Amino acid sequence: MDKKTRVEIGLENLLKIDGEDGKKVIDALEGVAPDLGKLILEFTFADVYERGVLDWKQREIITITSLLTLGGTEKQLDVHINAALNVGVTEEEVVEIFIQCSPYVGFPRVLNAIFVAKEVFATRKKS
Amino acid sequence: MDKKTRVEIGLENLLKIDGEDGKKVIDALEGVAPDLGKLILEFTFADVYERGVLDWKQREIITITSLLTLGGTEKQLDVHINAALNVGVTEEEVVEIFIQCSPYVGFPRVLNAIFVAKEVFATRKKS
Amino acid sequence: MDKKTRVEIGLENLLKIDGEDGKKVIDALEGVAPDLGKLILEFTFADVYERGVLDWKQREIITITSLLTLGGTEKQLDVHINAALNVGVTEEEVVEIFIQCSPYVGFPRVLNAIFVAKEVFATRKKS
Amino acid sequence: MDKKTRVEIGLENLLKIDGEDGKKVIDALEGVAPDLGKLILEFTFADVYERGVLDWKQREIITITSLLTLGGTEKQLDVHINAALNVGVTEEEVVEIFIQCSPYVGFPRVLNAIFVAKEVFATRKKS
Amino acid sequence: MDKKTRVEIGLENLLKIDGEDGKKVIDALEGVAPDLGKLILEFTFADVYERGVLDWKQREIITITSLLTLGGTEKQLDVHINAALNVGVTEEEVVEIFIQCSPYVGFPRVLNAIFVAKEVFATRKKS
Amino acid sequence: MDKKTRVEIGLENLLKIDGEDGKKVIDALEGVAPDLGKLILEFTFADVYERGVLDWKQREIITITSLLTLGGTEKQLDVHINAALNVGVTEEEVVEIFIQCSPYVGFPRVLNAIFVAKEVFATRKKS
Repeated sequence: MDKKTRVEIGLENLLKIDGEDGKKVIDALEGVAPDLGKLILEFTFADVYERGVLDWKQREIITITSLLTLGGTEKQLDVHINAALNVGVTEEEVVEIFIQCSPYVGFPRVLNAIFVAKEVFATRKKS
Repeated sequence: MDKKTRVEIGLENLLKIDGEDGKKVIDALEGVAPDLGKLILEFTFADVYERGVLDWKQREIITITSLLTLGGTEKQLDVHINAALNVGVTEEEVVEIFIQCSPYVGFPRVLNAIFVAKEVFATRKKS
Repeated sequence: MDKKTRVEIGLENLLKIDGEDGKKVIDALEGVAPDLGKLILEFTFADVYERGVLDWKQREIITITSLLTLGGTEKQLDVHINAALNVGVTEEEVVEIFIQCSPYVGFPRVLNAIFVAKEVFATRKKS
Repeated sequence: MDKKTRVEIGLENLLKIDGEDGKKVIDALEGVAPDLGKLILEFTFADVYERGVLDWKQREIITITSLLTLGGTEKQLDVHINAALNVGVTEEEVVEIFIQCSPYVGFPRVLNAIFVAKEVFATRKKS
Repeated sequence: MDKKTRVEIGLENLLKIDGEDGKKVIDALEGVAPDLGKLILEFTFADVYERGVLDWKQREIITITSLLTLGGTEKQLDVHINAALNVGVTEEEVVEIFIQCSPYVGFPRVLNAIFVAKEVFATRKKS
Repeated sequence: MDKKTRVEIGLENLLKIDGEDGKKVIDALEGVAPDLGKLILEFTFADVYERGVLDWKQREIITITSLLTLGGTEKQLDVHINAALNVGVTEEEVVEIFIQCSPYVGFPRVLNAIFVAKEVFATRKKS
């Protein structure tokens, strides 16, 4: 019986965590940089997310914190706020994670992240 | 009976979370910018850390993630890696939090944070 | 007679400095993170803007410099370029502040800020 | 016979490197900050691009790497991905330059840059 | 009679603004990148600092704000906090400029800048 | 005959590119985060550096540009300026790469990188 490849493991995890939104990012890379999609699946979603010690909920708390702090990553925040909600972070916790960043990162990036969250929450209510 | 001021609440929380290292930062501000120390105690350690929804362990996970991502904050990482360990994050988890940042922030800032953690872990073993 | 709360002082200052644009940001937080709006009013517009030593014109010069340097804060720049003009910074000075940043921050972020300023100037001429 | 001014040299180089897209940025500055356009032509496109040691292809590789790493510079990336292609970098090389940044800058900024490249490539195919 | 070159104007301004500390930076470039020193003198201290609209005190307020916000620029902050004091900014104002950045940039970078200021203030008292 | 693992390929490449300095970083991770060392070898030095299209000289030009632009990465710059020189970039080119970043990133980060280069050049001359 064949062992799963890193890409296969990564794709399975991506679908469980990010859902269709994450898959769309990988698909959008097809025509321009398919290898980048493969590297993301292998490194991020197989090598890193398969590790233990932290569960996926904790990993997504870390990811959205990092994305808020980086700035200019609204598209990735959209995907990973959805991911956080998918793996069990509540909307109230997402907001609180962003508020916790205020003293360290300043309000402008916190506001940018909150307004992405606001849209994500609204979109999920509709569907 | 008097209600505690925000500074008093902040100082109590700072001592519980950051311990003496955090207190030293506030003390070091005395001669140059005492009001900044007061604002940090009030805003960060009273207004923000007193909020619910997330516990202090989760708040420190968020804080060290943010500091790693910002870069150039080695001194603050030193204080808050200690804080994270003080409120129940394990050394293994600190390392894993930093590894989780790799795909989003890149290895250079992860390495900088890991080497601060290495020194913090060593110092705590000695004492 | 009741003393004003920090939120009340903050809201008064926000309206004087940022005007309706700033109020809209706080209002937009209502449905998603009302506490964040409160923290911004209290910390930024009461605790910090109420301090002396620098006047509001100088504070807005600092704020738009910081926002330009951070990058990815076009929405906040929009609000605070308006704020700067509201408290007495001239359009010519706004442009000159951004040019002064060029040797330290590089042209890309200066250009991003200038093009926000261009829209703000045009919008204010219309109204 | 008159020696060319730095602005004239800069404008000639801008047109050769960035083409009409770069000229449009300078023109867009006319109504708001014409001096900034002049400083960019003089400093970037005369003083710096006129230097030897590296050719323009290498200089554009450096420029798009820097822009990707800064983040929040999608408009400038658009101009300079076009510039890179104009001076002999291939589409495949642009993608590979961005992939090389992944371990150092993280995937979010690499993805943002790749999606700008995707649009640039598509636009050039049409014309 | 000869007109001053841009380098000469830049050097004169550098000496008036940054004093010997700034000169040392240019000198330190001699053995490794003398052209970079020349470009800094010409572009920053001739082209930009010679412009009107803002005076040097305002320009240094902008510069130290930008350096604080960038992070990782402790050496440049040292030079420009001295420069700010040289052209008439008071120590109290330097501290207040940094405090004004807190809500926008977060406390870690403000603390880093304050501790550079603390050393600069102490060094100047000694001499 | 056994195929080389990704770690083995990564380690071979690391030694060819970064030399002993790079190996020391991986070794320093042993006691604190050995898995991070493994991920760097596998992802950076096997998956990414093994790719074609760009040669190692071009890849190191990109890497030191990215590190300069990130800021706060002096230790990594030290390793990768050495790496750049190891794979055929000249000292003059290193300086020119950094000068090319000036209009996009600003002088402070360029100066920080130049002074790391100055030390690297001096150290290599001694040995």
